[in-house]
Amino acid sequence: MIKNNNDLSVYNTLTRKKEIFKALNPPRVGMYVCGPTVYGDAHLGHARSALTFDTVYRFLQYLGYKVRYVRNITDVGHLENDSDNGEDKIEKKAKLEQLEPMEVAQYYTKRYLDAMDAMNVLRPNIQPHATGHIMEQIEIVEQLLKNGYAYESNGSVYFDVNKYNNDTHKYGILSNRVIEEMISNTRELDGQEEKRHPADFALWKKASPEHIMRWKSPWSIGFPGWHLECTAMSKKYLGERFDIHGGGLDLLFPHHESEIAQSVCAFGSEPAKYWLHNNMITVDGQKMGKSLNNFITLNEFFSGSHPKLNKAYSPMTIRFFILQAHYRSTLDFSNDALSAAEKGMKKLLETQKNIDRLPVSKTSSIDTAPIFEKCIEAMCDDFNTPVVIANLFEISHMVNQIMNKKESISEKDRAELKENFAIVFNHILGMRNEQTDDSLKTMEKLMDIIIEMRNKARAEKDWATSDKIRDELTKAGISIKDGKDGVSWDLM
Amino acid sequence: MIKNNNDLSVYNTLTRKKEIFKALNPPRVGMYVCGPTVYGDAHLGHARSALTFDTVYRFLQYLGYKVRYVRNITDVGHLENDSDNGEDKIEKKAKLEQLEPMEVAQYYTKRYLDAMDAMNVLRPNIQPHATGHIMEQIEIVEQLLKNGYAYESNGSVYFDVNKYNNDTHKYGILSNRVIEEMISNTRELDGQEEKRHPADFALWKKASPEHIMRWKSPWSIGFPGWHLECTAMSKKYLGERFDIHGGGLDLLFPHHESEIAQSVCAFGSEPAKYWLHNNMITVDGQKMGKSLNNFITLNEFFSGSHPKLNKAYSPMTIRFFILQAHYRSTLDFSNDALSAAEKGMKKLLETQKNIDRLPVSKTSSIDTAPIFEKCIEAMCDDFNTPVVIANLFEISHMVNQIMNKKESISEKDRAELKENFAIVFNHILGMRNEQTDDSLKTMEKLMDIIIEMRNKARAEKDWATSDKIRDELTKAGISIKDGKDGVSWDLM
Repeated sequence: MIKNNNDLSVYNTLTRKKEIFKALNPPRVGMYVCGPTVYGDAHLGHARSALTFDTVYRFLQYLGYKVRYVRNITDVGHLENDSDNGEDKIEKKAKLEQLEPMEVAQYYTKRYLDAMDAMNVLRPNIQPHATGHIMEQIEIVEQLLKNGYAYESNGSVYFDVNKYNNDTHKYGILSNRVIEEMISNTRELDGQEEKRHPADFALWKKASPEHIMRWKSPWSIGFPGWHLECTAMSKKYLGERFDIHGGGLDLLFPHHESEIAQSVCAFGSEPAKYWLHNNMITVDGQKMGKSLNNFITLNEFFSGSHPKLNKAYSPMTIRFFILQAHYRSTLDFSNDALSAAEKGMKKLLETQKNIDRLPVSKTSSIDTAPIFEKCIEAMCDDFNTPVVIANLFEISHMVNQIMNKKESISEKDRAELKENFAIVFNHILGMRNEQTDDSLKTMEKLMDIIIEMRNKARAEKDWATSDKIRDELTKAGISIKDGKDGVSWDLM
Repeated sequence: MIKNNNDLSVYNTLTRKKEIFKALNPPRVGMYVCGPTVYGDAHLGHARSALTFDTVYRFLQYLGYKVRYVRNITDVGHLENDSDNGEDKIEKKAKLEQLEPMEVAQYYTKRYLDAMDAMNVLRPNIQPHATGHIMEQIEIVEQLLKNGYAYESNGSVYFDVNKYNNDTHKYGILSNRVIEEMISNTRELDGQEEKRHPADFALWKKASPEHIMRWKSPWSIGFPGWHLECTAMSKKYLGERFDIHGGGLDLLFPHHESEIAQSVCAFGSEPAKYWLHNNMITVDGQKMGKSLNNFITLNEFFSGSHPKLNKAYSPMTIRFFILQAHYRSTLDFSNDALSAAEKGMKKLLETQKNIDRLPVSKTSSIDTAPIFEKCIEAMCDDFNTPVVIANLFEISHMVNQIMNKKESISEKDRAELKENFAIVFNHILGMRNEQTDDSLKTMEKLMDIIIEMRNKARAEKDWATSDKIRDELTKAGISIKDGKDGVSWDLM
């Protein structure tokens, strides 16, 4: 138990300030986060979004909330300005590979989830697929037509942005944009001549004859617009109004702005009370992303197989790297930063192992509790994970002081230290040792045997044997360190 | 390369005989298999079905076919006689746990897939969900109504079994049953009074007000009948006519019989050319299953946490146990049989390891090629895995003879033996060593160090140390064996 007198405050993009978090229906919290489009491998940017909201999910649960966390899988209808011409990205890939779109989508979904599992990202409670909710999307289009905020044009249906803005004055409420700005960004594209206004966006698109992802609707055989799926699925699993909507900052406009427009005009209310956005990963100052083709996939990080990488970085290293920055700051990729993250992570893993080995005294000369309280305080301040990590390094220093007998700790305090470290490091930050338990245990036993034999050799002043053992271990990728209280070892 | 002059023959439940397999559109093969209903943990029966068709999938690919393998996830509408009253199993569980049905379904889907992954069951190319294909199911109901083989009654739609049978004479084509037999099995249940004939089955059910899984349809707000999803999803991903339809023998009737009825009446053709059914797992002679409540879940097997189990059995042990019986025979569960399977599997894993260590000679005194040819021949004979395994034990014996210098093998033949063993054991049977590569490699290096030190102790006649090392290793769960060519070790 770590004492906590702080309220949780979160930065709400909608109000542009930090607010005290008040759940709509405590102790339940509904959270919807925009998930991946599954037509390719996830990159570091995807990891950041997933990890940010994994931390939010973990911390809300730590505070006692019962969270229903929904993160969608976009497997159809990703219509951005770039591709508002009816050719959606998944279908493009499927044609290329001569595969069924669902097969491509499931292949990449599995790879995405495997990468998330490796980074210890908890599975959301529900991961609904866009293609599994076509009926629900059609119903919302019908509602929008009925309410007068959509119009049919040549078998497609568009959202009427002008009417929405004139009636509600809510256009730009989230992104702070104005319609004029949007128009100037719009290029001449197929389908534009069907729209009343260039800022209007597709709710339903009529499929061209060769378009293979297609469903029946009252307007045409076609497919839903991209913004619609999140409105349909968040409503289905969380209700018309829910607590938190999250996603990457790149989704702020037009995606999230359009979601608000759809909800306001179909249901009469904005969908989410709090809008949270994680910032981007940059590479040499530019956003890392598919469209810029400067991205490194997660599997490339895990294997080191990308020219920009000096070496492989484990999933937990990526996690730690991302958590070392606040989610609303940009985070620049570099090998140096990743190597530093790896080193920092190993130090904290070592600290956690050392807590068990700490010599205990009758009394404690130090008090670790206030530092853990600062960790919770930092989390309550808009999920400030870098401050949490800085405090854990403080703990690490204390543990070393106790190891070196410069400070002392009682058995009871050591037990509390152990528990609190696990709460913050493992449960809230989601860090874990990447070695599996079973193999680690066997390895530990083998190392016990080897270290004992080395000790014996040293006691007998048989330096040749003792040096040989060290050399062989180095070759096996294991470093050993002789300390005051015996020998410790680590995988290099 | 293993020589093969055999055609593949498969037992077709539809014709009740073994037939030469001829693909409809070679080299492509479409295969649909009924997957799990995800309202609880998978048990040994689910494993058998998945493993049977995994073996079929693997072997078809070995023969050079390009297979699209579709296995559905039933997450709604499992309407059997027992629950033909509109209360479907998933919803029941969801209410009980106060969870969203999709959350229950995704929770158990993940557990199912994790268990399948652990048993090295390859993921099917497409795993479609019933709830994701409601529109496609509604379209088939419309077609059946239009063709006169379905009727609406009080907002629900039923399939007209009598009319189907009178028009096509196809009723019982698969299961060999007659309508009278079915009627006598039918109990008086809610909804029965809506039917024209007790044998009629639901295509669409009107939802009662408290029923939370519900979709709009032309007839009512409701949900589709269980048999319909497989017709809709096999058609969508494989076409109206495809090569293989598989499933457990318990699905023969009414499920598969009803699928045929639906396809014949909606599309004018039977869906699959070959119907393959795996037999049941029995416990003390009774079928293992949810309805009999005598099942042991896969996770219970993996952890040993069920009163009927003497110990834990690893996923690969379960795989080997199931492959040791032919898929069309019943397979009785017992601890003895599982322990025997574990022993047999370890022997073959050991054999595979030993192939690398075989001493090579200028010439070979034996020829392993014909035995591998027998393996392929057995697989071509309706996937006769037990005969394959018997032949691998033959190889195991030969390898031991070479180890013991009673036979000899050339370097070229050893390379071929190694390759062929991997083809049959790893690729076709899907067996693998459960230790992960990385931890195994480190462990091997540590063991090298330990064994070298033990050898040194023995050379110096320091028996105390050498015995101590053996004892410590035993405690660590590792057995060592002194052989002619040095020391070998194994995890116990």
